[in-house]
Amino acid sequence: MDGIRYRDEDLRGYVVRFMEHFAVPRDEAQIVADVLVEADRRGITSHGVVRLSSYYGDRLRQKLIKPAAQISVVHETETSALLDGGNGLGQVVAHRAMSLCVRKAQSANIAAVAVRNSNHFGIAGYYAMMALEHSMIGVALTNSQPLVAPTFGRSAMVGTNPIAVAVPAGRKMPFVLDMATSTVSIGRIRVYEKTSKSIPLGWAVDSSGTPTSDPGDVLAGGALLPLGGGAETSGYKGYGLAVAVDILAGLLPGASFGSHVGHPTDLGAAGVGHFFLAMQIGAFRKEEDFRADVDALVEELAQAPKGSGQARIYVAGEKEYETAAECKVRGIPLVVEVVRQLAEEGERAGVPFDLRPME
Amino acid sequence: MDGIRYRDEDLRGYVVRFMEHFAVPRDEAQIVADVLVEADRRGITSHGVVRLSSYYGDRLRQKLIKPAAQISVVHETETSALLDGGNGLGQVVAHRAMSLCVRKAQSANIAAVAVRNSNHFGIAGYYAMMALEHSMIGVALTNSQPLVAPTFGRSAMVGTNPIAVAVPAGRKMPFVLDMATSTVSIGRIRVYEKTSKSIPLGWAVDSSGTPTSDPGDVLAGGALLPLGGGAETSGYKGYGLAVAVDILAGLLPGASFGSHVGHPTDLGAAGVGHFFLAMQIGAFRKEEDFRADVDALVEELAQAPKGSGQARIYVAGEKEYETAAECKVRGIPLVVEVVRQLAEEGERAGVPFDLRPME
Repeated sequence: MDGIRYRDEDLRGYVVRFMEHFAVPRDEAQIVADVLVEADRRGITSHGVVRLSSYYGDRLRQKLIKPAAQISVVHETETSALLDGGNGLGQVVAHRAMSLCVRKAQSANIAAVAVRNSNHFGIAGYYAMMALEHSMIGVALTNSQPLVAPTFGRSAMVGTNPIAVAVPAGRKMPFVLDMATSTVSIGRIRVYEKTSKSIPLGWAVDSSGTPTSDPGDVLAGGALLPLGGGAETSGYKGYGLAVAVDILAGLLPGASFGSHVGHPTDLGAAGVGHFFLAMQIGAFRKEEDFRADVDALVEELAQAPKGSGQARIYVAGEKEYETAAECKVRGIPLVVEVVRQLAEEGERAGVPFDLRPME
Repeated sequence: MDGIRYRDEDLRGYVVRFMEHFAVPRDEAQIVADVLVEADRRGITSHGVVRLSSYYGDRLRQKLIKPAAQISVVHETETSALLDGGNGLGQVVAHRAMSLCVRKAQSANIAAVAVRNSNHFGIAGYYAMMALEHSMIGVALTNSQPLVAPTFGRSAMVGTNPIAVAVPAGRKMPFVLDMATSTVSIGRIRVYEKTSKSIPLGWAVDSSGTPTSDPGDVLAGGALLPLGGGAETSGYKGYGLAVAVDILAGLLPGASFGSHVGHPTDLGAAGVGHFFLAMQIGAFRKEEDFRADVDALVEELAQAPKGSGQARIYVAGEKEYETAAECKVRGIPLVVEVVRQLAEEGERAGVPFDLRPME
């Protein structure tokens, strides 16, 4: 991606200062910085610092998210826990929850933690990946504000409810699946509208529930389609996955669910729920054998016959690791518009975005 | 569905006799019968008695599946187990594995069981649903013979690797998601070919990896597309899910994986792997509160605004429960062609299909 490149530590430092300005304790601000900058570093720019104000800063300022929130354990067993996030920053709450989940899995081999009363937590993959260094498979799910129409419906009733699964490999990079259960994100629709491009049929519907290629129709009362698109191409599967995520991340912890999860612009608590799972590989099989097999599968897929005109087959997470490696050398790129936005929002918040670009 | 209707217990009885003919012990034959007839009863006819010979009988006769196989526990902890299916019938192995998983979850709240050296097990939903009566959420995954091309590929490298999730409700029927991670099944492509109909773009590719509407091209060296279809409509997400299932059901137990899982027509052991998970709801939250919330979500989705020309919005499993209720009264329908096939195969196997239709 082209753009203005910044040093990783500079960007993190800015996010920390920004959060501290809103009374977020330093160690918690550092978690938020880590999650947001990790998204940019991995090329998932839609979930990076671009959201600093709109998803987090603006809500902290309006006291819709609590800085230094009290996170409490409502119920726990050796293999499970239910946390109340105290309406704190989603990143801080989720980091705490997955840390607890991994700790429980260290002694019980498998553990799950469900969370209620939280907020948008950024990229789900970040928390699934927390399992990797412990030789575990990690799973992270969250519900989100309603943006997706159920199959045969026309209104947004469920969130883009992402599924993240992280799996350690041997010599290869870990497998990291981090996907919304909608076909695309609402941000993608906005980009197409801004540039007056039509969207592929199957991404979204207009306000009558009819698939449309006009992004304006989607934003004017339409909704995203679940993964798979319309019913003919099995969109009910993506819809089913979105509901399954809502059940585990929303209903199991007693969080908000379905159409009741708050939008970042809503004036009440969002009531977001999460679900985390961690499993030790050694509980099933010798770890090095498993890691060697992950390598073998990844290699086999990379070597598989390519489609006409295609140069490469990827596995989930591969592109992101390569982008991160490039960012390590060249810095993290932000597009000009995002830099302008950060400058504007920093000014307004009283935390000037004064970072020097690299080179 | 129209067709010739049979009594549930008659169909089961026939499957048991058929299996016993191939030296399958009665209690194991009953499990196979239960899984196959349950598929027909729920309207998932592609996975019902239609497969009695092609997937199971033929392989038992050729000694490619072991009747009365020895299933062994290779490794276990309080929350996990690795089973070796001894190349037995997938239904029998999976039933044993999920029973063990539920038993472990009864004492440990959460448990997972991975299985290697098994065979095709029928509908994944059956095993996930075994958790329901224990107030647990059940998950069942399996890998399968390669039928799906990775995004940007042109050859079948992964299976249709289904995901099943079963969740108990209150007054409502349980939520039962049971979906292949491919857009459609290969059986669907065959039906379109037989009736000379073209398939929607997005279902499959030809041998060059190009999306095609000709089912013949798919069967002549092409492959299914993962859920989502091509890359533009996010097919890489379905592909990622298929690989995630292969990791949990294939790599974690040390089963065959990727392109190495055997087809039902192959002359070696299939090496199929499965993965099961069971979680007690009470480990997180008061069960009745959770069940009431599941009801509320299901109700809300049913009441959601309908798309233009649509009469109803479903949740996963709803149609299947309604079909099963109808079958309870009217019997289980088999299409004429399947009845003819059962007669032919029964003749050949020496177990005449002599059931009297209802009415």
